[in-house]
Amino acid sequence: MDNSTSKNDEIVPKYNMNHGKRGKALIFNHKIFDENLDLSIRDGTDMDCKRLDQVLNKLDFHVTVYTDLCYKEIHTVMKKTSLENHEDMDCIAVAILSHGAEDAIYAKDTFYKLDDVSDLLTPDNCPTLANKPKLFFVQACRGDRVDKGIRSAFVDAVESKTNTSLTMPSQADFLIAYATSPDFVSFRNPRNGSWFIQTLCDVMEEQGYHLEIVRLLTLVNYRVARMFEPEYKSGVAKQMPCIETRLTRDLLLKPKCVVLEKCDC
Amino acid sequence: MDNSTSKNDEIVPKYNMNHGKRGKALIFNHKIFDENLDLSIRDGTDMDCKRLDQVLNKLDFHVTVYTDLCYKEIHTVMKKTSLENHEDMDCIAVAILSHGAEDAIYAKDTFYKLDDVSDLLTPDNCPTLANKPKLFFVQACRGDRVDKGIRSAFVDAVESKTNTSLTMPSQADFLIAYATSPDFVSFRNPRNGSWFIQTLCDVMEEQGYHLEIVRLLTLVNYRVARMFEPEYKSGVAKQMPCIETRLTRDLLLKPKCVVLEKCDC
Repeated sequence: MDNSTSKNDEIVPKYNMNHGKRGKALIFNHKIFDENLDLSIRDGTDMDCKRLDQVLNKLDFHVTVYTDLCYKEIHTVMKKTSLENHEDMDCIAVAILSHGAEDAIYAKDTFYKLDDVSDLLTPDNCPTLANKPKLFFVQACRGDRVDKGIRSAFVDAVESKTNTSLTMPSQADFLIAYATSPDFVSFRNPRNGSWFIQTLCDVMEEQGYHLEIVRLLTLVNYRVARMFEPEYKSGVAKQMPCIETRLTRDLLLKPKCVVLEKCDC
Repeated sequence: MDNSTSKNDEIVPKYNMNHGKRGKALIFNHKIFDENLDLSIRDGTDMDCKRLDQVLNKLDFHVTVYTDLCYKEIHTVMKKTSLENHEDMDCIAVAILSHGAEDAIYAKDTFYKLDDVSDLLTPDNCPTLANKPKLFFVQACRGDRVDKGIRSAFVDAVESKTNTSLTMPSQADFLIAYATSPDFVSFRNPRNGSWFIQTLCDVMEEQGYHLEIVRLLTLVNYRVARMFEPEYKSGVAKQMPCIETRLTRDLLLKPKCVVLEKCDC
């Protein structure tokens, strides 16, 4: 055991994860797009969606899946969610599984910017989620560059309350976990699902209750970066996820207590 | 003490920070710009630069400061750095203190994209930094939106090796700590320096050897988000830093051993 670690656990403030409920999780799953967009069918996305649904459920989220919505419908769902009362919730999670481009994600009928929907959860639009984590998981391409990877010498790793401000920046407490880096494509296996979502689910299943969320996603980074390298145009294809965090505290999804029925005697 | 914490410390791989040297730190400090750019003098940046120089030095980096370079000069410095041998170094750090806009940073004579220089450190361009952290600290605006903050009910926080792949994505192992969120301005006090760099230096001085880098930057997020709120156009101005991480391991800047002179008797 390491004294310094325990001591350091107190240095970074923690999000309050002791509310009655974990919170909502919305999954926007996109498989088929309007013909005029000329986008391919996203075979395998149902595997991602099903697995994510299961894993988020296990981590105590209340999950709702939305399939092939148009942009206005997505906006309506997010707007409605922002108007709900999240007072007794720890946080919120939103997963988007779709085609994407630089700074754009595709709905069934058109593309949109993530900000167009994520901004609906800022504290001015959704006061009961103020100071609470707003987690986004985005499985989509972010451009058309393919990371061909770099073959390098293997480098082994060493295994080795006094807040005066009541006003917080509107942009605080968001975390966006992207499947890939800006400008780059992400990969999806038509039978098994996408590299990112499947690895995210693996790690959340194994460590969801034990690892702080950014460290959990660092482990996802590690695995996606190393474990996948199919052949691609006389080389290999690689993918590097990217975490954008504006969280202001550590976030640990500790288990929710099960309220047992009491004997009425 | 918390058993699970110590156990979890072994779950996420760690960067090897046992090389002979910490590594280089480059500070590109911009105060005065070419007249045709019509950019104001960045009063206070010298405070940021001096402090950052001191703190990075204390954390065992070998720091070089570059003042008011043109874009070609910055590119040349970065190119030269990429051709050097970093074999005996843990990592590299690059700080950029300048004006900025959406997806652009200003050199003395023109703007450029961060990728234009950061890509010079990918493993294909700089093999001896492969699998090592490449840390960027960017003090600059990223647009012209001002975060007016959200006054919300105060929510108190609970205080409470077996790798088969040798090919890594070229985008792996980068961390970019931005002073502010996309589209938003960042703030600088003409006498004391910028909110972000000064807070970063505070936290690095206090915790640089003790906290994993992303948690350290989460603490910077927390402090910048809470501690600054000057009056601004009949409201207050707030700022939310943003960490973009493609790190694949935990990163702790543990102290370098001091090699003591031996008695020659």
